[in-house]
Amino acid sequence: MKKNSEAKLKIIPLGGLEQIGMNITAFECEDSIVVVDCGLAFPEDDMLGIDLVIPDITYLKDNYSKIKGFVITHGHEDHIGALPYVLKELNIPIYTTKLTMGLINRKLEENGLMKTTKRKIVKHGQSINLGCFRIEFIKTNHSIQDASALAIYSPAGTVVHTGDFKVDYTPVFGDAIDLQRFAEIGKKGVMALMSDSTNAERRGFTMSESTVGKTIDNLFQEHQNTRIIIATFASNVDRVQQIINSAYKYGRKVILEGRSMVNVIGTASELGYLNIPENTLVELDQIKNYPPEKTVLITTGSQGESMAALSRMAANIHRKITIRPGDTIIFSSNPIPGNEKAVSKVINELNELGAEVIFQDVHVSGHACQEELKLIYSLVQPKFAIPVHGELRHLKANAGIATGLGIPKDNVFILRSGDVLELNDDAAKIVGKVHTGGILVDGLGVGDVGNIVLRDRQHLAEDGIMIVVLTLEYHSNHVLAGPDIVSRGFVYVRESEGLMEEANATVRDALNVCLDKNITDWGKIKTVIKDSLGEFVWKRTKRRPMILPIIMEA
Amino acid sequence: MKKNSEAKLKIIPLGGLEQIGMNITAFECEDSIVVVDCGLAFPEDDMLGIDLVIPDITYLKDNYSKIKGFVITHGHEDHIGALPYVLKELNIPIYTTKLTMGLINRKLEENGLMKTTKRKIVKHGQSINLGCFRIEFIKTNHSIQDASALAIYSPAGTVVHTGDFKVDYTPVFGDAIDLQRFAEIGKKGVMALMSDSTNAERRGFTMSESTVGKTIDNLFQEHQNTRIIIATFASNVDRVQQIINSAYKYGRKVILEGRSMVNVIGTASELGYLNIPENTLVELDQIKNYPPEKTVLITTGSQGESMAALSRMAANIHRKITIRPGDTIIFSSNPIPGNEKAVSKVINELNELGAEVIFQDVHVSGHACQEELKLIYSLVQPKFAIPVHGELRHLKANAGIATGLGIPKDNVFILRSGDVLELNDDAAKIVGKVHTGGILVDGLGVGDVGNIVLRDRQHLAEDGIMIVVLTLEYHSNHVLAGPDIVSRGFVYVRESEGLMEEANATVRDALNVCLDKNITDWGKIKTVIKDSLGEFVWKRTKRRPMILPIIMEA
Repeated sequence: MKKNSEAKLKIIPLGGLEQIGMNITAFECEDSIVVVDCGLAFPEDDMLGIDLVIPDITYLKDNYSKIKGFVITHGHEDHIGALPYVLKELNIPIYTTKLTMGLINRKLEENGLMKTTKRKIVKHGQSINLGCFRIEFIKTNHSIQDASALAIYSPAGTVVHTGDFKVDYTPVFGDAIDLQRFAEIGKKGVMALMSDSTNAERRGFTMSESTVGKTIDNLFQEHQNTRIIIATFASNVDRVQQIINSAYKYGRKVILEGRSMVNVIGTASELGYLNIPENTLVELDQIKNYPPEKTVLITTGSQGESMAALSRMAANIHRKITIRPGDTIIFSSNPIPGNEKAVSKVINELNELGAEVIFQDVHVSGHACQEELKLIYSLVQPKFAIPVHGELRHLKANAGIATGLGIPKDNVFILRSGDVLELNDDAAKIVGKVHTGGILVDGLGVGDVGNIVLRDRQHLAEDGIMIVVLTLEYHSNHVLAGPDIVSRGFVYVRESEGLMEEANATVRDALNVCLDKNITDWGKIKTVIKDSLGEFVWKRTKRRPMILPIIMEA
Repeated sequence: MKKNSEAKLKIIPLGGLEQIGMNITAFECEDSIVVVDCGLAFPEDDMLGIDLVIPDITYLKDNYSKIKGFVITHGHEDHIGALPYVLKELNIPIYTTKLTMGLINRKLEENGLMKTTKRKIVKHGQSINLGCFRIEFIKTNHSIQDASALAIYSPAGTVVHTGDFKVDYTPVFGDAIDLQRFAEIGKKGVMALMSDSTNAERRGFTMSESTVGKTIDNLFQEHQNTRIIIATFASNVDRVQQIINSAYKYGRKVILEGRSMVNVIGTASELGYLNIPENTLVELDQIKNYPPEKTVLITTGSQGESMAALSRMAANIHRKITIRPGDTIIFSSNPIPGNEKAVSKVINELNELGAEVIFQDVHVSGHACQEELKLIYSLVQPKFAIPVHGELRHLKANAGIATGLGIPKDNVFILRSGDVLELNDDAAKIVGKVHTGGILVDGLGVGDVGNIVLRDRQHLAEDGIMIVVLTLEYHSNHVLAGPDIVSRGFVYVRESEGLMEEANATVRDALNVCLDKNITDWGKIKTVIKDSLGEFVWKRTKRRPMILPIIMEA
């Protein structure tokens, strides 16, 4: 990489802090743009009915001619999930590691994008040239195989982006994180480090994935006389490998259940990331041919997702699996913040069915804790620190680690979506803002549900709706039919007949006042009905249902 | 207590497992009933718009003549919150400790129930006779002062009920739990132990409340140059005491903020449970007279409750307090399961305003962990174990502790709401079931929102509503007006004009088919409209809004 003292690099997160999970960051230098990751966010609690949130890519459209490619750090949804949506609008090549590409390919196939999308698999240690950029893929560890950090060499200087990572000295598969390479790049001089903040509030060191294998092995040893069902993240291939290892050791057949479990493990297995002894894996339908204590079911649903396999088993609505007293159910996972109650519900339901439920200490995180972050900062020794991945509290905690290690406060940047950070080896500052945002996806609709619709849904959810309909005669304003009141989600009408009669009287009175005064403006009539009925209902019930007057003309 | 070998005791939870928090249990023996606690539950996530849930007291109404009184273990909402609702229907005397009664009195005053309700304050160590029962109040420790365990002596035998408790050898105020008395009663022979299961999954011992005081003191020492704002549970009087102690030591004025904080601390202070040095407490309006670093604000909102004081400060909508960069905000609390995301939102907002937020290790639980439960079992040595307080998973964990200590599995009972457990010193079994349930309170409405209304709210929340209105001529079925479609919470109509036009055409077609066939049954017409529009919308959007056809006659 030829350094150019005039060159400046722009780093522009197109999602992130305002849409957690929507990891997509543009790197712009001279005539080139490289985009790191393309994730989607899951809806916040107040986004009623929304399935997922994808990035607004106005900036990419406006600068399409400069874009050299997507560089993807690993195969989790918050890093690859929005690719099909974006690729339908913009044809951009994809560069990533083998397993990550395998998972992306599945998405592209489903969306008919395989033929049109250029894809290139990169190995750890390899570099690719994209315009004025050179991008090097560095081996890291994470809760999915084939995760990469990136060294992004630009004419303005070098940026190291950790991706999601942890330091695992004894990984289950493949190599430990390439700490030597981090050190080597650091030694040569790094302009900025962008590092994973997810666990920046947690002290110490994240335990090795292989410690979970020992725990699982002990559980298999202790529960040799019961069926075992283990829920975990489908994408945690190493976890599944360790379960399979214990199953093989104790002579159990393994059944995979849940669509994403079957898909991801299928892909990982085809690509050689999983070593399954012959005759170990059997189909769900064959489970009846083996005694329960000689089987183990690996399933989705560790987060209490209502439609996932384990949740359906717990609710006793799974087509093929019935939980029996004595079954051992293991959650090899921790609840992601926000999922605690859903997970607890499933645990209670499984208890109800007589199963023994084990959920403590059968999981380790895939993200670096404070001591690991300190290690990476110390190896890379960046001039500037740009915490990424996490909520503001996590980014601030990561920033605190950076300053604690001697990076001046002014050299630490917490970027908002759309912030344009311009930097070279001497200086860095936020020089502008590009348009960004989250686009809500509901069913097939992309972007047709906005704030007004969500506010209405929230209102409807809280107190329901009262609809007032009436028909007026053309010109005369004579009432031909109604006013009738229909309500949904407000009160159980049979129990509240008196209330509804009075509500009707209130509307009639309000309407008569309008007609007596010869008010012919329907907007005004609606407002009067809405206000008077709203006031009546609030006084009587202390509730504020949505009130929707509809006037028809005949 | 005269033992009667013929007598049998019935224990009947009228809430609990099916409505977590609704702690209310009837003890029935011979001609007497005593009711322990009278709590309310907070709504589950799927109870949209519901404010709280109170117990169905059909059983108490049916057996009113036998009821001798309410015996209340402590002053938390999940043990006293439903009293005003129940006392409006049934006049029952209340027996409890001084602070607990003070908190109950506040509720009775607000509801005009003071004059009609007989109330008697009981001291720890004292007993009261209620019909054939004698009830002894035993000192325990908990996250609120004046908590009691109960020894319930009946002609059939003795039951020890721990209430919510922990073992605190070094409490902030008053005495440690009266372990000697537990041992003494145990030595005399206890039929059943009902013990707090909340922390039964947690290993070890809950730390003493006084350890939090040391942490708080350190934080005051380290932050002498900033304003301090501490959020905690209003009812944790000892926590507030410790904050006041540190404030006094470091020369800060204390301001209480949030309605429940002012109320509870006011009551506790009046009754002598809090020792506030003179000139330490100042009114919120006086805060401006002191330099920020000489003040500490103790506030509600530690659970991220959207209307609480801290949440309003974080959202920058508090009338009187503006968070400034450099403020130190301390969460002296842990998120209660289900509140994690709300708390995180507040932490992020406070970070956004430039405050330093501290939320780790400034709290201890008020509930016994596994080793404390083992201690109580070992002192009381009950024949039967009845885990109480918690979800099924917690009750099962407590049951596991009981059996681990040698209580036979058949002697451990996990009771459902309404189960009638009949027992004496020889045997115990579930002999029946009484009617129980949760009554939903929404605004002023008690019980007028049921499953149908909630299902409608859920449906409205997910996908909104499409209303189809039309006016038919009397007798002729000639269409006078409409069909018109109005939607709310479905799509943003301006963005989806084409869709709405096609939807309208779909309805018109369906209606014409009906009219052509001379279908005059409005129910049938509505069904046809609903089905055809529903199918159209699903095909086009993969959504299922509520479809509500309204036909008027003119």
